[in-house]
Amino acid sequence: VTTPLRYEDGALLVLDQRLLPGREEWIRCTSAQEVAGAIAVMAVRGAPAIGLAAAYGLALASREAARCAEEATIHVDEAARVLGAARPTASNLAWALERGRRELGAGRDLLDLARELEREQLEADRALSEVGAQLFEPGDRALTHCNTGPLATGGYGTALGVLRTADVGHVWVNETRPLLQGARLTAWELERLGIPYTVIADSAAGSLMASGEVDRVVVGADRIAANGDVANKIGTYPVAVLAARHGIPFYVAAPLSTIDPATPDGSAIPIEQRDPAEVAFTEGQPAANPAFDLTPAELITAIFTEAGMLEPPYPEAIARVAR
Amino acid sequence: VTTPLRYEDGALLVLDQRLLPGREEWIRCTSAQEVAGAIAVMAVRGAPAIGLAAAYGLALASREAARCAEEATIHVDEAARVLGAARPTASNLAWALERGRRELGAGRDLLDLARELEREQLEADRALSEVGAQLFEPGDRALTHCNTGPLATGGYGTALGVLRTADVGHVWVNETRPLLQGARLTAWELERLGIPYTVIADSAAGSLMASGEVDRVVVGADRIAANGDVANKIGTYPVAVLAARHGIPFYVAAPLSTIDPATPDGSAIPIEQRDPAEVAFTEGQPAANPAFDLTPAELITAIFTEAGMLEPPYPEAIARVAR
Repeated sequence: VTTPLRYEDGALLVLDQRLLPGREEWIRCTSAQEVAGAIAVMAVRGAPAIGLAAAYGLALASREAARCAEEATIHVDEAARVLGAARPTASNLAWALERGRRELGAGRDLLDLARELEREQLEADRALSEVGAQLFEPGDRALTHCNTGPLATGGYGTALGVLRTADVGHVWVNETRPLLQGARLTAWELERLGIPYTVIADSAAGSLMASGEVDRVVVGADRIAANGDVANKIGTYPVAVLAARHGIPFYVAAPLSTIDPATPDGSAIPIEQRDPAEVAFTEGQPAANPAFDLTPAELITAIFTEAGMLEPPYPEAIARVAR
Repeated sequence: VTTPLRYEDGALLVLDQRLLPGREEWIRCTSAQEVAGAIAVMAVRGAPAIGLAAAYGLALASREAARCAEEATIHVDEAARVLGAARPTASNLAWALERGRRELGAGRDLLDLARELEREQLEADRALSEVGAQLFEPGDRALTHCNTGPLATGGYGTALGVLRTADVGHVWVNETRPLLQGARLTAWELERLGIPYTVIADSAAGSLMASGEVDRVVVGADRIAANGDVANKIGTYPVAVLAARHGIPFYVAAPLSTIDPATPDGSAIPIEQRDPAEVAFTEGQPAANPAFDLTPAELITAIFTEAGMLEPPYPEAIARVAR
């Protein structure tokens, strides 16, 4: 299991996850603009990892700005704007940038902050994984969607962290079209961790549940609204609807930085529409490519965070822990 | 729009649908064994088209047998066994073979029968398409899964026949992993027919429904049990569950040859498990590949057949029309 980001010699190295599992190549970013580019093309992806990348991007901008003190704030503000616009849905991005600008204002070194956020992420991942794992029975067969391991968080993983900590018997891995984060990344991480798994077409999750082969579902999140609605990778909502139909617990695992108390409900979360070419089979074929969907709070059994397990009613539970 | 099968010069030409839309190549089959092979590898697919291919395969066997009269029945029986074992789920296959053997016993020429079945399929498709189209409003946005056009039936199409006949405004095409019959075949047919469409990842159907962009769902079937349970391409069941949640009518369009009154309910339908390599991203990756799933009758708004529209309670409706 590897890390998606490495800071070395004044540059942020970003593991190009688009090439995994075939090749391990690192993109060297020396400016916030380059980091924003790596986020936009999804070389780095996963809400927490995007947040960390943005924090390092802001640190790069602040180093550059330090050479020219009178324009420093403008330079960092501009970097924050570019980084914040790289992808719209994950709240961790705005959260990390907001924290960076605030701490910069208080005189904090931003590289120091980025490194601290990375340590915090690891701690949060471990804590929420412990919280979630307690609900699992030994041998449980769990289903997950997309990728939520170290590649997605820069830490221990969220949903996949729960699965690492729990004594699961088997993991069903939704391949997660169109970019196959499940078949490419989650399978790769589970293989390295020695956890038994099986990749399935996303559309096979329903019949697996119907035939009693799924005990629990756990997924990550890109943004959690104040009422508990969750934006996550496209295909999460169908899994939640199917789990509800079959009485299978449906859990969301995410750090508090994924909760956006300023977003009242799912309808206020911007859903990124990506290039249709990622879905189209032939060049120019008409295709739609929403990158995320919304799972209403009513379908979510529990949310695992580093501050403990949140249960319905979510508005109150979230208000208690949101930062 | 093209036909999947052509009988010429004592051979059945099978359009190799695995290569569409990139290339149009025909496989020349001169024996039942070769036809069974073309069915097994899914060069020809779609329940009705499989039935027609099997009928031609049996005709090839009967021509060969005619040269050696005393072993003719044994030869045709053996051919029927091989053809019947090519794929397990679609009932049209067994139905066509059963009809072939019965009519052979009554002295019928099997090539003549295969051609008649092809005409019957076209008529059935047109009739059930008229039946279904009456329920559509002009401009309706319909969602479909897999491929159910002429390529799948050898006729006019079932679910896609309904969409051709109805005045639909737009068709959402599930790409239909793992073999992409939607993105490859349905998109190709809709393009040729001039019907506006958009291809989506299978997992995007849920959020489209949630945002009110789907008025009706119509799919085909590989086998319909006596109680109305439907086996169809993997991913049909999730679509049906989502449609029910959003109050969207979910229709099944199929000829009577797809109804198997001898199958009491969905649990008695054998579900084909195909090569995991069709799903796996890397060689040898653990993967599961069920080719079909079961949609319980309770989720089906209506079934369109050439004998009219079937509505719940299905056991009675099916008993009235099943042959």
